[in-house]
Amino acid sequence: MRAVKGRGGKVQKENEVLYFDHAATSWPKPQAVLDAVMSAMQHESANPGRGSHRMAVKASRVLFGGRRSLAKLFGIRNPNDIAFTLNTTAALNVAIKGFLKPGDHVIATAVEHNSVRRPLTYIREHGVEVSYVDTDEHGELDAAMVESAIRPHTALIIVNHSSNLLGSILPVADIGEVARRHGVRLLVDAAQSAGVLDIDVEAMGIDMLAFPGHKALLGPQGTGGLYLHPELDLEPLLHGGTGSQSEAEGQPDIRPDRYEAGTPNTPGIAGLRAGVETILDVGTARIRAHERELTLRLMDGLQALKGLRILGPPAGRPRTGIVSFVASEVDPSELAFILDQHYGIAVRAGYHCTPLAHGQAGTSSTGAVRASVGWTSTTDEVDAFIAAMKEIMKHY
Amino acid sequence: MRAVKGRGGKVQKENEVLYFDHAATSWPKPQAVLDAVMSAMQHESANPGRGSHRMAVKASRVLFGGRRSLAKLFGIRNPNDIAFTLNTTAALNVAIKGFLKPGDHVIATAVEHNSVRRPLTYIREHGVEVSYVDTDEHGELDAAMVESAIRPHTALIIVNHSSNLLGSILPVADIGEVARRHGVRLLVDAAQSAGVLDIDVEAMGIDMLAFPGHKALLGPQGTGGLYLHPELDLEPLLHGGTGSQSEAEGQPDIRPDRYEAGTPNTPGIAGLRAGVETILDVGTARIRAHERELTLRLMDGLQALKGLRILGPPAGRPRTGIVSFVASEVDPSELAFILDQHYGIAVRAGYHCTPLAHGQAGTSSTGAVRASVGWTSTTDEVDAFIAAMKEIMKHY
Repeated sequence: MRAVKGRGGKVQKENEVLYFDHAATSWPKPQAVLDAVMSAMQHESANPGRGSHRMAVKASRVLFGGRRSLAKLFGIRNPNDIAFTLNTTAALNVAIKGFLKPGDHVIATAVEHNSVRRPLTYIREHGVEVSYVDTDEHGELDAAMVESAIRPHTALIIVNHSSNLLGSILPVADIGEVARRHGVRLLVDAAQSAGVLDIDVEAMGIDMLAFPGHKALLGPQGTGGLYLHPELDLEPLLHGGTGSQSEAEGQPDIRPDRYEAGTPNTPGIAGLRAGVETILDVGTARIRAHERELTLRLMDGLQALKGLRILGPPAGRPRTGIVSFVASEVDPSELAFILDQHYGIAVRAGYHCTPLAHGQAGTSSTGAVRASVGWTSTTDEVDAFIAAMKEIMKHY
Repeated sequence: MRAVKGRGGKVQKENEVLYFDHAATSWPKPQAVLDAVMSAMQHESANPGRGSHRMAVKASRVLFGGRRSLAKLFGIRNPNDIAFTLNTTAALNVAIKGFLKPGDHVIATAVEHNSVRRPLTYIREHGVEVSYVDTDEHGELDAAMVESAIRPHTALIIVNHSSNLLGSILPVADIGEVARRHGVRLLVDAAQSAGVLDIDVEAMGIDMLAFPGHKALLGPQGTGGLYLHPELDLEPLLHGGTGSQSEAEGQPDIRPDRYEAGTPNTPGIAGLRAGVETILDVGTARIRAHERELTLRLMDGLQALKGLRILGPPAGRPRTGIVSFVASEVDPSELAFILDQHYGIAVRAGYHCTPLAHGQAGTSSTGAVRASVGWTSTTDEVDAFIAAMKEIMKHY
């Protein structure tokens, strides 16, 4: 039934792990993704755009095919408005440092990841004014709160589509409408949403979209990208060879070359393309429903445990497949350690690169345990997780 | 005998190509590289450094293993002084933009790739003075010529270890000695040398070494790195999450995290590690001897053809496995097209992202055909190449 074969209740010896870390990276990858990476290394592994021989042309087609699939998924008209990057962080750095100029004002939310916060800390030292709009304790906010932060010199709004700690979903389309009305540009961090939530850059007023290839898009690590509205022209972060206009002293204007200096990750992008094709086949609605069912089941099971507090929106409110929690009597890292060592359950403990969101949730002093599900997660896995937690919490 | 199986004289149907584009990217990759990438995607594909569960620890070990192998190959004391990047271009951008400050003077050679030239063009607009030291027409120069360009405010010398057009080898150790004597730092672009020429960062006085993973190091595309002398501290090019010191507003100081924001290309680095291990097993001396034999054979065969001029150092002088040439009566792109379409021979025509080197060689108006060999190239392939060129040149 499922396009990606779940591991089911019987965990194989070699995969002796119950994987609840999909928000960090999805695993296992679909077989089609593994096959595409391998095939690209074997048959399409010349240097794309650096030669016109047949294999180089094949490699170029891999890249364009990847762009085309992503464009279809995100409602992007011209696939060449997508530039591939090493990861979401690189895409966000290109967008933030390339777009903002001294004297500009930028608004971000208080559930941004360090991939936004640290670039903003850096550019603040270079004459850009930065405001963070608070969310409520669940990591939610209204577009009106963003609107009230707009000033005459506001140039950009940055929104985390879904908090990587709290799972809350931010109203991107509403914020996009606000941004358009004020002539402000909108950058969306889709690290936790690409492949799960519906994203249409035109309809949602998104000017720049940074996304990972290796999370819900099911591709391999080493992939990510940036969609850039055709009207925008950024100073590239990387200058170098593009295989095009070699004689030009500066970076070429043509896209995607302008934002893709150096040899790209051809096999990685081949895998990403296969991941995106899987999603286009299955449909994000079905993926979302699957993750929602598992998330609610997980929240339901954990809520019954004494001394446990689940972070993020209450059950019933929209959220992605992220369920973070703290226990009053046991440290998150100890919990994660016990889950790993005694139950083979992979979760993540700590600050999840988002001290900002911990500030909103009131967990700055403790951090939290984050369990996250994905398309390949199963109800059996969720039930095993809840059973383990029940057993552990008896001791506290 | 060979650690990497050559394809031999019989070209298989599916690999219907005689590959002479190793300077762009090596192909085919060793089976060990393909296996390592696959294994990493299957078994070590959690997010390294973003969790302490077993699979995340395994992924972290992949990265450290890669660093350790590279450190061994390049004589680097602390593997954590190596940061992984998307490609050599990204590594050079980190080095150039992170090291140079307004008011600095930087010296580069006139055989630099656009991966050096374009960042220099960019920072020249930001108050850095840039000088290029000419080479001779073969792309060679003496360290004394670099020394004479040093001024009181010279902060950095950048040297292309081997020209990607001419194959000439630049005297890095001598230039390193000059740099040390003048208190100037040295950045080496090892795009064409890493895995072939001996590199010892300590002995050669190299402060920063940018290298590709996917060329002579035999790893997959999407990999590269930068060695950074422990005394140097650069402003990172990418700011973002590192999985470490999440609470810190700025980029952490610890290495390699400081220069590796965002999720790394774990499967790619697993493959790179396997490539480097292959090289450590075989030894660069043997690889160099193999490539030298094929290069001389290729030059010998081409030299006999009328109307053909081979660029770069004359036979007998040191060079890497690059043989570029121009024909008086036929355009390089036409030659490359015929080689590809009629003989299944993959070469690269054009400017090879190095208009500077074309200026030195006197081929700025034409470009050139570049044939490049690698560790998996064979004498049969070289002979087939020469035979094809003989046939083609009869018509001109």
